[in-house]
Amino acid sequence: MAHINLPEGLPGIRGPMAYRPETAKPLNELAEILLRSENSLTRGERELIATYVSSLNDCFFCQNAHGGIAQHYMECDMSFIDGIKKDYESASISEKLKALLSIAGSVQKGGKNVTKDQIAKAKNLGATDLEIHDTVLIAAAFCMYNRYVDGLATWAPQDRELYVKRGKQRAEEGYIHFDLYK
Amino acid sequence: MAHINLPEGLPGIRGPMAYRPETAKPLNELAEILLRSENSLTRGERELIATYVSSLNDCFFCQNAHGGIAQHYMECDMSFIDGIKKDYESASISEKLKALLSIAGSVQKGGKNVTKDQIAKAKNLGATDLEIHDTVLIAAAFCMYNRYVDGLATWAPQDRELYVKRGKQRAEEGYIHFDLYK
Repeated sequence: MAHINLPEGLPGIRGPMAYRPETAKPLNELAEILLRSENSLTRGERELIATYVSSLNDCFFCQNAHGGIAQHYMECDMSFIDGIKKDYESASISEKLKALLSIAGSVQKGGKNVTKDQIAKAKNLGATDLEIHDTVLIAAAFCMYNRYVDGLATWAPQDRELYVKRGKQRAEEGYIHFDLYK
Repeated sequence: MAHINLPEGLPGIRGPMAYRPETAKPLNELAEILLRSENSLTRGERELIATYVSSLNDCFFCQNAHGGIAQHYMECDMSFIDGIKKDYESASISEKLKALLSIAGSVQKGGKNVTKDQIAKAKNLGATDLEIHDTVLIAAAFCMYNRYVDGLATWAPQDRELYVKRGKQRAEEGYIHFDLYK
């Protein structure tokens, strides 16, 4: 049971968002810009960064919800996403994305953990300032979303296949114009 | 020097906000609702929660910027704010605020650290569901803002008195209608 009296039946972040629409609005707008708006990083790459940080924060709902969306964009299976969470260095993703995931992992520990070497490596592999900025902010934002979801002890479905099925729908709807109850 | 090429001379979060106004908009709207909009928690109490979490995250800019604003609202001196950061249990603040700071401190470690006992204690001391919700989200949001500021290695003035002087101005302007360059 959640720590406060949330609308019933809504999984994860949807409960607190329905409870407090005033804060849901900027939270969703931030996700929309970071994860879906025009960017030289693909939507799949950005959802992967969100998924990876959520797995480091051990947030079941967020890592599966965004893992399901990443899986849809990347047209891969669940084991590919799980492989990246476990050991992205061995995954068949670009070296630039690996460098950005490394930065995201440091941000998850705390902002000061990001080193000049990590930044230099990412830049050498072609990462732009904007890509580095957005990687840092996506990682930081998921340190917020994850804490929001788990800090209120929200409920989440345990069947991981459910999130994969939802991935397509969530990818199409985006983060602003969707019905919290559907 | 910051990790990416940010507009010069802007301290802390202002550099990345000027660099990426698209994400600055929802970030500022979230702060405005959480820290300044109508609430049964005073603005001073909410700024204190933000300051406390920022100190746990060791973010110099955020703990001093929001500490300065809290100091303005609470009409206290810097040593009072520093005392709360160091040991809020011994500070002359309400027992309810102490219970909320305890929840905020757990959120800073990770959402799952919040216990039923902490929630029950806060509720017994009169905390409403909305106050608990907002405490969790303020704490979670500052885990984002702090990582954003330090993850990009932004610059911050070291003279703490500067933030106290700024506190009044920031309190009056709020988080939406202000000039990043002033």
